[in-house]
Amino acid sequence: MKITIAQLNYHIGNFARNKELICNAIDKAKSEGSDLVIFSELCISGYPPLDLLDRLDFIEKCSHTVNEIAKQCIGITAIVGCPVINPKNEGKKLLNSALVLSDGKVVCSVNKALLPTYDIFDEYRYFEPEKNFSVFTFMGKKLAITICEDLWDEQPFDNEFEKSRLYTVSPMDELSKFGPDLIINIAASPFSYTKIEAKENIFRLKALKHKIPVISVNQSGANTELIFDGASVIFNGEGKLFRQLPFFEEAVETYSLDQISTGSIPREDPKNLIIELIHKALVTGIRDYFDKSGFKKCIIGLSGGIDSAVCLCLAVEALGNENARALLMPSRYSSDHSVNDAVALAKTLNVQYDIVSIEKPFSAFEEELSILFKGKGRDITEENIQARIRATLLMAVSNKFGCILLNTSNKSEASVGYGTLYGDMAGGVSVIGDIYKTDVYRLADFINSYKEIIPVNTIRKSPSAELRPDQLDTDSLPDYGILDTILYKYIELQQPAERIISEGSDREIVLKVIRLINSNEYKRYQAPPVLRISSKAFGAGRRMPLVARY
Amino acid sequence: MKITIAQLNYHIGNFARNKELICNAIDKAKSEGSDLVIFSELCISGYPPLDLLDRLDFIEKCSHTVNEIAKQCIGITAIVGCPVINPKNEGKKLLNSALVLSDGKVVCSVNKALLPTYDIFDEYRYFEPEKNFSVFTFMGKKLAITICEDLWDEQPFDNEFEKSRLYTVSPMDELSKFGPDLIINIAASPFSYTKIEAKENIFRLKALKHKIPVISVNQSGANTELIFDGASVIFNGEGKLFRQLPFFEEAVETYSLDQISTGSIPREDPKNLIIELIHKALVTGIRDYFDKSGFKKCIIGLSGGIDSAVCLCLAVEALGNENARALLMPSRYSSDHSVNDAVALAKTLNVQYDIVSIEKPFSAFEEELSILFKGKGRDITEENIQARIRATLLMAVSNKFGCILLNTSNKSEASVGYGTLYGDMAGGVSVIGDIYKTDVYRLADFINSYKEIIPVNTIRKSPSAELRPDQLDTDSLPDYGILDTILYKYIELQQPAERIISEGSDREIVLKVIRLINSNEYKRYQAPPVLRISSKAFGAGRRMPLVARY
Repeated sequence: MKITIAQLNYHIGNFARNKELICNAIDKAKSEGSDLVIFSELCISGYPPLDLLDRLDFIEKCSHTVNEIAKQCIGITAIVGCPVINPKNEGKKLLNSALVLSDGKVVCSVNKALLPTYDIFDEYRYFEPEKNFSVFTFMGKKLAITICEDLWDEQPFDNEFEKSRLYTVSPMDELSKFGPDLIINIAASPFSYTKIEAKENIFRLKALKHKIPVISVNQSGANTELIFDGASVIFNGEGKLFRQLPFFEEAVETYSLDQISTGSIPREDPKNLIIELIHKALVTGIRDYFDKSGFKKCIIGLSGGIDSAVCLCLAVEALGNENARALLMPSRYSSDHSVNDAVALAKTLNVQYDIVSIEKPFSAFEEELSILFKGKGRDITEENIQARIRATLLMAVSNKFGCILLNTSNKSEASVGYGTLYGDMAGGVSVIGDIYKTDVYRLADFINSYKEIIPVNTIRKSPSAELRPDQLDTDSLPDYGILDTILYKYIELQQPAERIISEGSDREIVLKVIRLINSNEYKRYQAPPVLRISSKAFGAGRRMPLVARY
Repeated sequence: MKITIAQLNYHIGNFARNKELICNAIDKAKSEGSDLVIFSELCISGYPPLDLLDRLDFIEKCSHTVNEIAKQCIGITAIVGCPVINPKNEGKKLLNSALVLSDGKVVCSVNKALLPTYDIFDEYRYFEPEKNFSVFTFMGKKLAITICEDLWDEQPFDNEFEKSRLYTVSPMDELSKFGPDLIINIAASPFSYTKIEAKENIFRLKALKHKIPVISVNQSGANTELIFDGASVIFNGEGKLFRQLPFFEEAVETYSLDQISTGSIPREDPKNLIIELIHKALVTGIRDYFDKSGFKKCIIGLSGGIDSAVCLCLAVEALGNENARALLMPSRYSSDHSVNDAVALAKTLNVQYDIVSIEKPFSAFEEELSILFKGKGRDITEENIQARIRATLLMAVSNKFGCILLNTSNKSEASVGYGTLYGDMAGGVSVIGDIYKTDVYRLADFINSYKEIIPVNTIRKSPSAELRPDQLDTDSLPDYGILDTILYKYIELQQPAERIISEGSDREIVLKVIRLINSNEYKRYQAPPVLRISSKAFGAGRRMPLVARY
């Protein structure tokens, strides 16, 4: 038996594109003499379709697309992921299904049993879990077809408060009763740099436990904030890796079951690749945000600081230098090196840049508000006005030239609310909003690893918002090294203050940082979607009440 | 047996406040000779605690608070709602529990079986559903204690695609096997003007089916966008209403079981009260947003149009005229009547107002951008700049004087993206973002029902954004009557385009409107939280992909 893995980049609701991708892969599989071609979870609709699943017309389009694809399945069998109407009278209205297409029609339907409903996942919002299990016999082999989380019944969590067994049923334990020959897993598993090894171990351990090969097919490419890393894997029955498809890229590859059962490959420890993978994830995230929303060009406010520099490098990699432009917006508080460093980077990257001073609009605001503010001293108000003037200028360029504004806030700033709503927090998508400042430096070093692209001065100087004379980030915040440690423990690991303090962080700083995190939920509520590379990004995966006290 | 219903306004994570509210009600119940006092779902933590439930320290505070309250329960028994750690090794880490407190300790724990995971509800994200059922015997009576959704196993949905039986188990059918004498339901059920009757019918039908009284205790008050209407009900065993507590207000009332079993009251059809209830909901929403976030004062951009006028009236009702201020920001395109109407309203309401022209900042922006925009005609860019100048001015006042900016966008605008991101879409909370324009007029009429508060000219004139000469909303949009019908069918009822067309709306308009709704998800993603009064508000209850195509 020859099996083809199709790791493709789907677009939510774009049935024509998804169908074309799938049919092309079926053609390729046929040309390689394949018997079975495997696609990923919900590949028909794209993942995650969210509340489009509440629309009957959307489900009907899924069904129609499956039937069209089934017609191509003559002389070959395909497994596709698709939302299907729950035929039972009670329960949720949909099932998250793997459909087996053969002889021009749907010949088998397997439904997901474990529905992830945590972090960014909301599957029980839409789907009824399957409670009955059976294998699908194909060419004399019994296939245990599973859907993503179905194999994740024993998964590690970052938060120690989580239970080690999130579910009360193990689909593979049930399926093992039928003596399966092969485990197939169709997945839609987004990238998280903390989960690279854990994800592989899930599949390795299932192969080892049941002593049969595991083929897991993930999708590649990004849908808004979620970046799917592909990296589909084949493990043989001894739990050894036979093949891992590329990270973040499409790939369609065919292997015989005999090859899979016996072979294995050595591979590099992914821990050594983390910064490279994060870099590729972000480039993928930008590229697909633009590609899938039909835009080509971006605009970035280039300050001369490290955040916007890294974002511009990523944007140029994703969209090409001809599609990126930069706006430099110096103020009375900008240092000379800010403009020089920004210009140097734009020139190195060969990116169009313009310089527009914010002085005149700022003076106009000050003048108009002078009566209203009479007797009041200068405070954060004037800093925010400058940030909002810059956002207004950037959005004006965005509107006039049809570019999308890329937001350049990092996760450290976003955590403690060190940013201006409707100012530097503006943008269509946040490029590095899931990257702590200390990791922004690592990304800069990675970008500069072959030659100096980002000016060394941009990397070495002390971070400053330059919104008042001689301002430094450290006037308001702890050193980023100290800050990021606390942030990671509080946000990703969800540790209580006392635990963080007991592990060595200063009590006063910890309490201040936590207070800042909690009191700035209202700002993050209005922030753009954040390209997600961690286990706990701001956005849909972290839902906090706004008017709470805690 | 005497039973006390405690309908209170809890604050998420504010354990001191919640404990005080609960203990005061226990004292009152004691003084009225009550045997049993019933509080609402998750009253210890406040509802919805969202991802605070992922924090072990938060759960420990809940547990500590319950133990403190239990100490007050000497000579009286209380039922409180609280998140509790799931004692089993597998499954979700928490249970959504009703705890019976008596003799100074927790004597019984009943866990929620049906976990709403749709619209604004995410309960399966946190809680393991209960699968075993039993009654609690108290003073010789068997109490069927249920938690909110547990009684909603047969509920009507607006979306016809939904199944009439969302769940595969009926807790009351299970509990009825024990021959209960009384159904107690502790709830956290937010207001929706479409659900007033449906909600009562849920309880009425359970009372009728099981021929025993139903006591349902809801909370009052708002937590960010969710506005809880209270309106706790007691139905007797014949399905007749014995008592309904006030809408949106706190109340603690004691009745004997004999009274409940025999009495009933007539009541007004709530359909006649819808606009009044929506008005009260919004006032509650504003009041609690400020109260619970520790702010007193608001600022509103007053345009002379109906939206900001209605919002200012609501804000004055919620916060008092001394805590509301208005900013009038005329431009070269503003008509005279805009300023006059706005001033007239501010004077009628006795609200502080200031007038700041946007002309100078606008000219400064035009000047600074003139080289960059050379050869380009005027377009939406210049309109957006004006809207963003206004937001910058409003936020400057917000920053300088410590007021929260109230957003005044209506649901019709928000639906079709007729608004400027970081401009008129700015604000801490959206007051009328769940009110279609045609209903904004109804609210204005309601506000004016005793005397003219909102100038008649504000109500009668054609809506205009006044961002270019002689602009009218109808230049870009259909008449609001036509638009709102399409919006309601597409957003609330989730009807497909063809159905809306077949029911009489113009095909071209329907397709244009749907295209506008879909292509503006990215704007709504960054909008402030919207006070929710419908069955489908923008925000957490409606999760749409951004870069999808559909």
